[in-house]
Amino acid sequence: MTTTTSAALDRRYGTTDVPEVTLTETIAGQLAHRSVRRFLPSSVSEGDLAAIVAAAQSAATSSNQQSWSVVVVEDRERLARLAHLAGDQAFIADAAAFFVWVADLNRAATIAARAGHELGGADYLESTLVASIDAALAAQNAVVAAESLGWGTVYVGAVRNNPVAIAAELGLPPRAFAVVGLAIGRPDPDEQAGVKPRLPQSAVVHREQYDPAASADGVAVYGARLSDYYDAYGIEHEWTASVARRWKDAAGLNGRHRLRSWLEELGFPSR
Amino acid sequence: MTTTTSAALDRRYGTTDVPEVTLTETIAGQLAHRSVRRFLPSSVSEGDLAAIVAAAQSAATSSNQQSWSVVVVEDRERLARLAHLAGDQAFIADAAAFFVWVADLNRAATIAARAGHELGGADYLESTLVASIDAALAAQNAVVAAESLGWGTVYVGAVRNNPVAIAAELGLPPRAFAVVGLAIGRPDPDEQAGVKPRLPQSAVVHREQYDPAASADGVAVYGARLSDYYDAYGIEHEWTASVARRWKDAAGLNGRHRLRSWLEELGFPSR
Repeated sequence: MTTTTSAALDRRYGTTDVPEVTLTETIAGQLAHRSVRRFLPSSVSEGDLAAIVAAAQSAATSSNQQSWSVVVVEDRERLARLAHLAGDQAFIADAAAFFVWVADLNRAATIAARAGHELGGADYLESTLVASIDAALAAQNAVVAAESLGWGTVYVGAVRNNPVAIAAELGLPPRAFAVVGLAIGRPDPDEQAGVKPRLPQSAVVHREQYDPAASADGVAVYGARLSDYYDAYGIEHEWTASVARRWKDAAGLNGRHRLRSWLEELGFPSR
Repeated sequence: MTTTTSAALDRRYGTTDVPEVTLTETIAGQLAHRSVRRFLPSSVSEGDLAAIVAAAQSAATSSNQQSWSVVVVEDRERLARLAHLAGDQAFIADAAAFFVWVADLNRAATIAARAGHELGGADYLESTLVASIDAALAAQNAVVAAESLGWGTVYVGAVRNNPVAIAAELGLPPRAFAVVGLAIGRPDPDEQAGVKPRLPQSAVVHREQYDPAASADGVAVYGARLSDYYDAYGIEHEWTASVARRWKDAAGLNGRHRLRSWLEELGFPSR
């Protein structure tokens, strides 16, 4: 079933200057994504949880290694502790559930140990990356599935602010670390937030080879569109300034410039 | 709109011992995912491309930094060269298009340079990870969107076998590297492949804290289910052996144990 709509694209790009495209119901749902950070009290049914996890597991995984796990937290006290560890973001404590997506080579280590093998192949940057990407693909399928069921979601990268403490809180075994969190809950309709415009496609999609000029042109028109979006909520925002600030030096990383040594401690030397 | 189905779950887990869940049309599509490696000749229309990219851009991105780009390759000669560089996988050359998902901090570098800043915050493992995760979330949304439009897809992690040569082929600027490729094409109905069973949910989903015993129990029952799947195609396969082999030592990484020095060369020191 397909639906033709341009309003969803207009919102996504913050302009009516978008191509006409034919959308499926699934794509229409994806286009409507926004991060939800205000939740009404609720809990995730076992049926919804099973459906969300089945979608996550249906994502591709490198060589079918399935190098990820997810820890689902619903205990209010643990949620509050995780909220504190992940940048004091209170909405985590209000979520119906907090899904922590884990890069998991512990399962492989257990299998290898039974076979009398070492796990020497897990010590490389490639290994950290492949397990993290596996976890990310699963998480994104979970987001799409959860939103199709009416849940609101928001990723929490700040689980990487304190990966060692998070691992202890979740009882993670060696060779496992929290890649990203995902708070899930019923969206509070009073939240002041909408679909955030993205860079024009011309800045992000390159045909055959990368075109730096197209990227720069896209950045130039994007700033005004994003400022207009924030204006509607009474917020002053300049995108290029936020980018320059974020990447200027280690200070923009909220302490995560130490991630490499933390991951080494957790069994991902990333050499 | 929701559809109740257990057949899709049965296939996904290789057993009829699965929970009854209520599925949306979107989730039903996700559950039906399989990697497609045999394509019929075709090309992706501009409308489908725009819809797929819009879905990709609708995925969450850390602090709205949008630290990724995608290079879409359709030129037959370039496809053949990329197929060679990515593990000599011929299906890449037969795809309608090969989408190369790029961790892109070049855009940030350009913005920072105009502001008279350095990009010191991009030198850390965290920076490599956050850009790679951004790219992975976008890619997975693209997969879901493309499949809803009838396209078949398969990820190609082997773009990391030769990231420096791939960057040259695609004209990537500094501070950009190919995280993963995605071949898209019309599925050849004669391909001998189906929906591959995954680990039971009990092995992958942990409640409140990680449970190593549940993970081990799940692994024990999974082997037989996956062997049954491969038996139907006349292939002998033992999952735990594949896991032990993959992670035993650097040899299981197809040369990618050198990824850290390659990424340093491309502007991601990952320190």
